[in-house]
Amino acid sequence: MSFNTFGQMFRFTTFGESHGVALGCVVDGCPPGVRFTRDDIQAALDRRRPGQSRFTTQRREPDEVKVLSGVIDHPEGGLVATGTPIALLIENVDQRSKDYAAIAGAYRPGHADFTYDIKYGLRDHRGGGRSSARETAARVAAGAVAAKVLPEATVRGALVQIGDIAVDRARWDWNEVPNNAFFCPDAGTVPLWEAELDRVRKAGSSIGAVVEVVAEGVPAGLGAPVYGKLDADLAGAMMSINAVKGVEIGDGFATARLTGEENADEMRLGNEGRPHFLSNHAGGILGGISTGAPVVVRFAVKPTSSILTPRRTVDRLGQETEIATKGRHDPCVGIRAVPVGEAMMWCVLADHLLRHRGQVGGFVRWPFEV
Amino acid sequence: MSFNTFGQMFRFTTFGESHGVALGCVVDGCPPGVRFTRDDIQAALDRRRPGQSRFTTQRREPDEVKVLSGVIDHPEGGLVATGTPIALLIENVDQRSKDYAAIAGAYRPGHADFTYDIKYGLRDHRGGGRSSARETAARVAAGAVAAKVLPEATVRGALVQIGDIAVDRARWDWNEVPNNAFFCPDAGTVPLWEAELDRVRKAGSSIGAVVEVVAEGVPAGLGAPVYGKLDADLAGAMMSINAVKGVEIGDGFATARLTGEENADEMRLGNEGRPHFLSNHAGGILGGISTGAPVVVRFAVKPTSSILTPRRTVDRLGQETEIATKGRHDPCVGIRAVPVGEAMMWCVLADHLLRHRGQVGGFVRWPFEV
Amino acid sequence: MSFNTFGQMFRFTTFGESHGVALGCVVDGCPPGVRFTRDDIQAALDRRRPGQSRFTTQRREPDEVKVLSGVIDHPEGGLVATGTPIALLIENVDQRSKDYAAIAGAYRPGHADFTYDIKYGLRDHRGGGRSSARETAARVAAGAVAAKVLPEATVRGALVQIGDIAVDRARWDWNEVPNNAFFCPDAGTVPLWEAELDRVRKAGSSIGAVVEVVAEGVPAGLGAPVYGKLDADLAGAMMSINAVKGVEIGDGFATARLTGEENADEMRLGNEGRPHFLSNHAGGILGGISTGAPVVVRFAVKPTSSILTPRRTVDRLGQETEIATKGRHDPCVGIRAVPVGEAMMWCVLADHLLRHRGQVGGFVRWPFEV
Amino acid sequence: MSFNTFGQMFRFTTFGESHGVALGCVVDGCPPGVRFTRDDIQAALDRRRPGQSRFTTQRREPDEVKVLSGVIDHPEGGLVATGTPIALLIENVDQRSKDYAAIAGAYRPGHADFTYDIKYGLRDHRGGGRSSARETAARVAAGAVAAKVLPEATVRGALVQIGDIAVDRARWDWNEVPNNAFFCPDAGTVPLWEAELDRVRKAGSSIGAVVEVVAEGVPAGLGAPVYGKLDADLAGAMMSINAVKGVEIGDGFATARLTGEENADEMRLGNEGRPHFLSNHAGGILGGISTGAPVVVRFAVKPTSSILTPRRTVDRLGQETEIATKGRHDPCVGIRAVPVGEAMMWCVLADHLLRHRGQVGGFVRWPFEV
Repeated sequence: MSFNTFGQMFRFTTFGESHGVALGCVVDGCPPGVRFTRDDIQAALDRRRPGQSRFTTQRREPDEVKVLSGVIDHPEGGLVATGTPIALLIENVDQRSKDYAAIAGAYRPGHADFTYDIKYGLRDHRGGGRSSARETAARVAAGAVAAKVLPEATVRGALVQIGDIAVDRARWDWNEVPNNAFFCPDAGTVPLWEAELDRVRKAGSSIGAVVEVVAEGVPAGLGAPVYGKLDADLAGAMMSINAVKGVEIGDGFATARLTGEENADEMRLGNEGRPHFLSNHAGGILGGISTGAPVVVRFAVKPTSSILTPRRTVDRLGQETEIATKGRHDPCVGIRAVPVGEAMMWCVLADHLLRHRGQVGGFVRWPFEV
Repeated sequence: MSFNTFGQMFRFTTFGESHGVALGCVVDGCPPGVRFTRDDIQAALDRRRPGQSRFTTQRREPDEVKVLSGVIDHPEGGLVATGTPIALLIENVDQRSKDYAAIAGAYRPGHADFTYDIKYGLRDHRGGGRSSARETAARVAAGAVAAKVLPEATVRGALVQIGDIAVDRARWDWNEVPNNAFFCPDAGTVPLWEAELDRVRKAGSSIGAVVEVVAEGVPAGLGAPVYGKLDADLAGAMMSINAVKGVEIGDGFATARLTGEENADEMRLGNEGRPHFLSNHAGGILGGISTGAPVVVRFAVKPTSSILTPRRTVDRLGQETEIATKGRHDPCVGIRAVPVGEAMMWCVLADHLLRHRGQVGGFVRWPFEV
Repeated sequence: MSFNTFGQMFRFTTFGESHGVALGCVVDGCPPGVRFTRDDIQAALDRRRPGQSRFTTQRREPDEVKVLSGVIDHPEGGLVATGTPIALLIENVDQRSKDYAAIAGAYRPGHADFTYDIKYGLRDHRGGGRSSARETAARVAAGAVAAKVLPEATVRGALVQIGDIAVDRARWDWNEVPNNAFFCPDAGTVPLWEAELDRVRKAGSSIGAVVEVVAEGVPAGLGAPVYGKLDADLAGAMMSINAVKGVEIGDGFATARLTGEENADEMRLGNEGRPHFLSNHAGGILGGISTGAPVVVRFAVKPTSSILTPRRTVDRLGQETEIATKGRHDPCVGIRAVPVGEAMMWCVLADHLLRHRGQVGGFVRWPFEV
Repeated sequence: MSFNTFGQMFRFTTFGESHGVALGCVVDGCPPGVRFTRDDIQAALDRRRPGQSRFTTQRREPDEVKVLSGVIDHPEGGLVATGTPIALLIENVDQRSKDYAAIAGAYRPGHADFTYDIKYGLRDHRGGGRSSARETAARVAAGAVAAKVLPEATVRGALVQIGDIAVDRARWDWNEVPNNAFFCPDAGTVPLWEAELDRVRKAGSSIGAVVEVVAEGVPAGLGAPVYGKLDADLAGAMMSINAVKGVEIGDGFATARLTGEENADEMRLGNEGRPHFLSNHAGGILGGISTGAPVVVRFAVKPTSSILTPRRTVDRLGQETEIATKGRHDPCVGIRAVPVGEAMMWCVLADHLLRHRGQVGGFVRWPFEV
């Protein structure tokens, strides 16, 4: 059962609400000997942190992470995982715990207010409670640990579409991603998005987006048919991110328009006689198992549901009403979903690596060195 | 770990290869007292069965199911589940176990040949072995049992796109689905698809497709945030079907182009004061929990990888070669994916119903008190 | 995979080492609406807390628990679970993090030093690290929440044997348990144990013990054959407690000496025509399912491995050596295992209650019709 | 959720009732390349098969196993696992499906009749249905596959006690086990047991027993603290066997009487400087992880509940009655529990080996040989 736990061999359990005391996660299954620093995790969190540009929520959260367990100091500096659970804690600071009672009763369209009430009969209504995207900070922290499990791999995410404006793939440059507030890989698209988002933001509206995440250096052989397929797990992972409504692997929905000839990724021998693919329509996965080619995932993020325009709704007393959501919100939640998508990719890959080769990967010989 | 098991509370484990002795599944967690007949399962299998039109593979498999365990005869006829595992067996008949050795060495592009070899070091190469879509017969059998767990719900699937030709949604009629060889809900589209598929088939080629599955009558409250979300589990379920490359919930990728105002599903009170939604962009799921509105899922199916046109590839001896796949194949595997998509929807819903009953103990009524 | 997670529907994940920053747990699956207070959890922790008599370790840990998530304030006081994960944190205070390096290399017989090193290649050697019984504080915290899930049940534990001295069952009085430092249900045995433990303690030695835990008011029907049996899960739960080497249900090993006639628990009708058992050799479980009679579990706890007498061992450099363990240790770890055993009983029962509600949807009444 | 599935990485799911069409299991997670024959499985089943002496049930079941999937023929003979699920089927032959209706209503004391009815509201009453020990045939089949996963290990079981008569450990000889009808390791005890069981059998009574299972050659390092401990999983595994009421690891309950000095397994260096233990009170497990010493488990089996002496009970109509169980029954079910205990030991060890090192254990290089 996976209420709040993700993964099997490399797994994390998250906890915490938007306006509670703290949030965090317990990472279980990290192989012993994996090295990282608190700064590695902090750096990942900083990329997702709110309030870094006018295009994200103005909530100010330092998101400082504490490492509570599962590591010892390495003689050469930093931390080393012992194979026991790694608990990571992030305290909430700027939660503005004013009285949400006034809006507590009306269900905000597009939010989980209605469904949490229907399911649980009660909910933490302060800022979305558990359904808030603040939970994704814990995923990013877990992803920073997962990244250390596959040092040979690279995972990079980018925003590829906002509203009707898609990036020009001919100008794709990963080096541009850190240079703008959108994780945009195309410098030419940035001013277009700035203009669009300023317009949206000033209108009190919001807009959808598409994120792409690419993993390179993934060893072939990861994924366990038929109900532990790598692509199925990636699809579930990305769809579990707040506001995501669609997921594609490789060419995704475009394959519906292709013929078998067009879609076939032909193979040839390359360096040292190793096989490689001449194209990657498959997005690096065949039969649910990684091929060694880049693993390519895209997901659609719906527009932020919190908008200033009043919308018709009902409240928990069974009355019709209207609601407009003030407060600090991302006009395009797709932007901050980029590091979250990267984190989920890392966690899925780490999990499948360990499923394939186990937590420890072999027997330690005795006597041995630290 | 879910190598070959799907689900948590309502779960099934499948086994069997394309050209082995038999395939089947063990359904575990079916509530005691659920009634069904062997014919219910057979009828579901017959919808997926090959060889029913010139647009599907000409392999002739009766796909007769045997119920081995988990039931007793009901005094009024049919079977009743006892709460113990229900084993369902389908023997292979038309497996044509001729020597596949000649093609065993060359990796068919788009197939799982290469990845199974890389992962496992060996594989059952007869007709795709475990990676064959024949495994989906076992899913359909399990889905027929799952359907009996939610008698109040309806699940219907349709093919909505083949290649560039999509159905006209204005003419959508569920009653048309059983009237044609495509599960097409629009009579006007049928001749267009027939012409297209005849062309594809004669060329020895293949083509992709899009399937839509809609569940109505699903109770609100199913789905367990944040790592047991209903939409995430549906995404994983559909992506686990052979050849699927993309999954959408509700408006899916189209939400990337919407504003918050457009995407909001407003609410009003209806019959007996019950809340309802004025639109369903969300596809019946908010925050990972069902809203009571129809659950809408679409998935893209890539073109069949087995084509007559030779493609460049390599073999397991490390040599470059070419391969063309003769034999009996579906020119559009998307067609027979329709009943498989329905089955996976049933299984996910049954699983989440039982999870919900467990954690919450029943359905919360609306309006409700704290 | 259950590296550090216990349970399925009601589940908890623990983290933390003996001498780390903090330890704690995340309780996942607590039904919404369950009410408790922080004091409920603290009271349970206080029963297990070290340093309360001369017969337990002199380490001074306040074991103050913080509730980080998963609850909101109830209007009438206390907390109410929202159905989201409940994170509980206990900071370590008296960890005396002096240099353990001197003894880090030699494997203490009976401890997990050797096996952690062999498995993981490294370990947190400060006070046992993850293998320390301090981890059980997190179980006790989780158990205090689980207890609120079954308000109709009562779980009580007692120490029934220390070394060769067993309690006189004819004098069993649950009311005596809180009156002595041993959780002993027989006032007459207390002075005998005091004398025995003073002797053991002064000799720098240690001694084994047997704990019995009894649950009353458990509804019939809990437990899912054949691999989710209530007795099998209880056996696994108790055996997972540090230093436990044996588990019995009901008459346990004594049944090997019984005939079928002696072992049969006959049935008769009682109040309101309800069936009841005339004896309870079965310990409240038949076929892996609870009968409604008291669930009775006993487990053996080996003597504390930390003793002053030098023992022969080897070190991680591959040299033979001797080791005597100084420091603050329980002369009989069985004593503080009593509240831990109770907590595990609560957690198993809560888990099985939720599993049952899920699969079956409520309790079947008796007598009943097909 | 583990309703009918055992294990995590090496896992099996069983199905089937005592008097149904067939029973069997699906073994999932067997590493690719593991070789075995159908005869290997049959030989294991034959050891457990009923009707082989006058001391076991006279039901005649050939228990012939069919291998339905998951293997291909090995060029050198026998089968080789492909890494996909291995389905094993055993058809019931001698089920004597006469009308059980007469006794269907009365709950046999000690059996699961009452609890299945209470839990599920109905049950398969033919010969115990799912609660019958016939299910253990499927475990034995799975265990025969598991044994091939650890070729370096040896697992042997023996009956060590019937009623009050225990074997003389000074005369223990594993070679005697196959020479008698009891799996008795002491030739001198055999005639005593024969006399005792003849007496019990003629009286229509039954008697309890104790089984011991020892695994040698188990690599150190198996087991994942703190909720995947090897001893906890073994305890759960053995307690899940029909009629088992107690489980011990190593010295078990006897450790309650020991001092720390007595219980300590001291270490010294042996062959090639490898560490070894001078005693094995711990039964080969410390901190939940294997030490490399023999893993020793004992479990108590209660007397068969089916006896000729009438016992008081109630029926499902809510009336008091008496019942005596005629038919073909083992007077001491502990005897045939020996191969079942061995099978569970194999399955737990295989599972933990794969948890430790993964299903595949490393990346297959390309190009590669079969």
